[in-house]
Amino acid sequence: MIATKGYAAFDPNSPLAPFNFERREVGPHDVMIEIQFCGVCHSDLHTAKGEWPGVMYPVVPGHEIVGRVVRVGDHVSRFKKDDLAGVGCMVNSCRTCPSCQEGLEQYCENGNIGTYNSPEAGMDSPTFGGYSNQIVVNEDFVLKIREDQDLARVAPLLCAGITTYSPLRQWNIGQGHRVAVVGLGGLGHMAVKIAAAMGADVTVLSTSANKEADARALGAHNFVVTKDPEAFKAARNSFDFILNTVSAKMNLDEYVNLLKLDGTMILLGVPPEALALHPGSLIFKRRRIAGSLIGGIAETQEMLDFCAHHRILSDIEIINIAQINTAYDRMLAGDVKYRFVIDMATLEDTSA
Amino acid sequence: MIATKGYAAFDPNSPLAPFNFERREVGPHDVMIEIQFCGVCHSDLHTAKGEWPGVMYPVVPGHEIVGRVVRVGDHVSRFKKDDLAGVGCMVNSCRTCPSCQEGLEQYCENGNIGTYNSPEAGMDSPTFGGYSNQIVVNEDFVLKIREDQDLARVAPLLCAGITTYSPLRQWNIGQGHRVAVVGLGGLGHMAVKIAAAMGADVTVLSTSANKEADARALGAHNFVVTKDPEAFKAARNSFDFILNTVSAKMNLDEYVNLLKLDGTMILLGVPPEALALHPGSLIFKRRRIAGSLIGGIAETQEMLDFCAHHRILSDIEIINIAQINTAYDRMLAGDVKYRFVIDMATLEDTSA
Repeated sequence: MIATKGYAAFDPNSPLAPFNFERREVGPHDVMIEIQFCGVCHSDLHTAKGEWPGVMYPVVPGHEIVGRVVRVGDHVSRFKKDDLAGVGCMVNSCRTCPSCQEGLEQYCENGNIGTYNSPEAGMDSPTFGGYSNQIVVNEDFVLKIREDQDLARVAPLLCAGITTYSPLRQWNIGQGHRVAVVGLGGLGHMAVKIAAAMGADVTVLSTSANKEADARALGAHNFVVTKDPEAFKAARNSFDFILNTVSAKMNLDEYVNLLKLDGTMILLGVPPEALALHPGSLIFKRRRIAGSLIGGIAETQEMLDFCAHHRILSDIEIINIAQINTAYDRMLAGDVKYRFVIDMATLEDTSA
Repeated sequence: MIATKGYAAFDPNSPLAPFNFERREVGPHDVMIEIQFCGVCHSDLHTAKGEWPGVMYPVVPGHEIVGRVVRVGDHVSRFKKDDLAGVGCMVNSCRTCPSCQEGLEQYCENGNIGTYNSPEAGMDSPTFGGYSNQIVVNEDFVLKIREDQDLARVAPLLCAGITTYSPLRQWNIGQGHRVAVVGLGGLGHMAVKIAAAMGADVTVLSTSANKEADARALGAHNFVVTKDPEAFKAARNSFDFILNTVSAKMNLDEYVNLLKLDGTMILLGVPPEALALHPGSLIFKRRRIAGSLIGGIAETQEMLDFCAHHRILSDIEIINIAQINTAYDRMLAGDVKYRFVIDMATLEDTSA
């Protein structure tokens, strides 16, 4: 077993704190990565606070992981020591179901193995995520990261990037499409950058007028203040696609009505409560609502390569691991542009 | 003006009763049809009872109209006296907007002209529907009906038929698809017949086990009693498409969960209240919910030809016009297999 340092939530209500645990030995197909940076996703917070069912405490969150390979198993062919490497939301899946065979491991019919809070094969403990100094992952679930990039800013691509890239690709979004992004947070700011790079005409829909300059700096071509009734009304029937990154209660119909005939709203956020939907909003303009969940491993690699090629990085604020609880509070207040990323070297200064 | 006999609702609460009114003169592009049969759609009932906003009383419902041409305008080229003809939910549209130009008059951006309860060009009165002895319609909105069919059983195709045919075509449903139909009424029974004729494997989802024989007689290959928790659970993740014809409150998530990865639920019914939707039901299997509204004129003709070719007719119960109020009561009780059709010859026995 490999002694590992990390930060964990020990119950839903206490702050995260240092936690020493063991990783499995590096098996013949495994890659061991020294983690340099880990992005802080809203899922981390939901899990740490027990807002989703089935949390196995202590939980070590983190699934936007980048670092350097420090050891590889005997049969590993795709990675060698000192390579840059990334790990996203999944570390394994059944490999045999139709979804896995199609490269859609995120929809594995037997349940994919999450990077944290999933059963860890051959261990009594669950999988532990990226708020830690190192991780051992089967090479098939490790991504290649190109050198010559700001590594801290690459980390959030592993979840926020792929979650927005995948539906944009699935729906063949690009030149000639008017795309709206609702929610300018971790997911939303990536959606703007990637959709613009794909050639779409991008509009940010925001409650606050003071986000306009930021939205345009990210690459948005247009900006609509949703609290301005005239502007909101003028935007009706005007979008081919809406990427909805909001994971809170919202008036779905109002936003669906912004879609053109045959337009599609893609839901990426999972609010705790159900949303109200009037079927007429869809029926009278043949509109659609679709869901999308992260992306498969091959598509994640494609996204990383796309972003490297287009020089797309996340806009981040780097924190020390000891600041994680404050960061969670700030995320709940919407006070982050646009992703916190933990500098994992700062783990050295802490002890369990 | 052309003196016309019909049946109208005079206010939301009184029974329908005889009503004498005037149709416009037959213009150069108009066709006048002596109505032989008119189907009774749930929309008729919603409108008559003022359950939808904007009802202009007196209202003459009816948009599943078949009969014989008795007169044509000077410039009419597609119809001549004694031809069989049909009229569906629309009698005109702007003809110039992008939707109309695409043959999607039902989504006319300037609002299509409904067969009843819409503004009638050049008249003070609204359009009056098919619960009447004759109708005058622009030839572009008149459908050709093949001879050698049971005309009463053709009438419901003009709304129930096209409403189910259009989404089946739009989504290219056929061989290799597992399709479920929810709600075995006027729309649902047509959905079963048409989807089966298109080559799909059709399952009827019903609350009552005693509908199984009927469902299979209509062409369904499978039947699931939704109130049987084991059977309902076993149907999870199994359908490519669900045609949802229910226009009442229902648990949308439970049905969405019956869709496979990338499966689509198509909503055809407009319930008065919003439905609750958990975005997770879509996200975790990349599912979709879509709406669809009747169909365009060209597609309606295509549907009529398809049904004539495949010998598809509606299953109906013929009534006298004087029985319309009882028929409405029975529709509300779900007591009809599967569409009432009014024999318009019976109008002769009534007087306003």
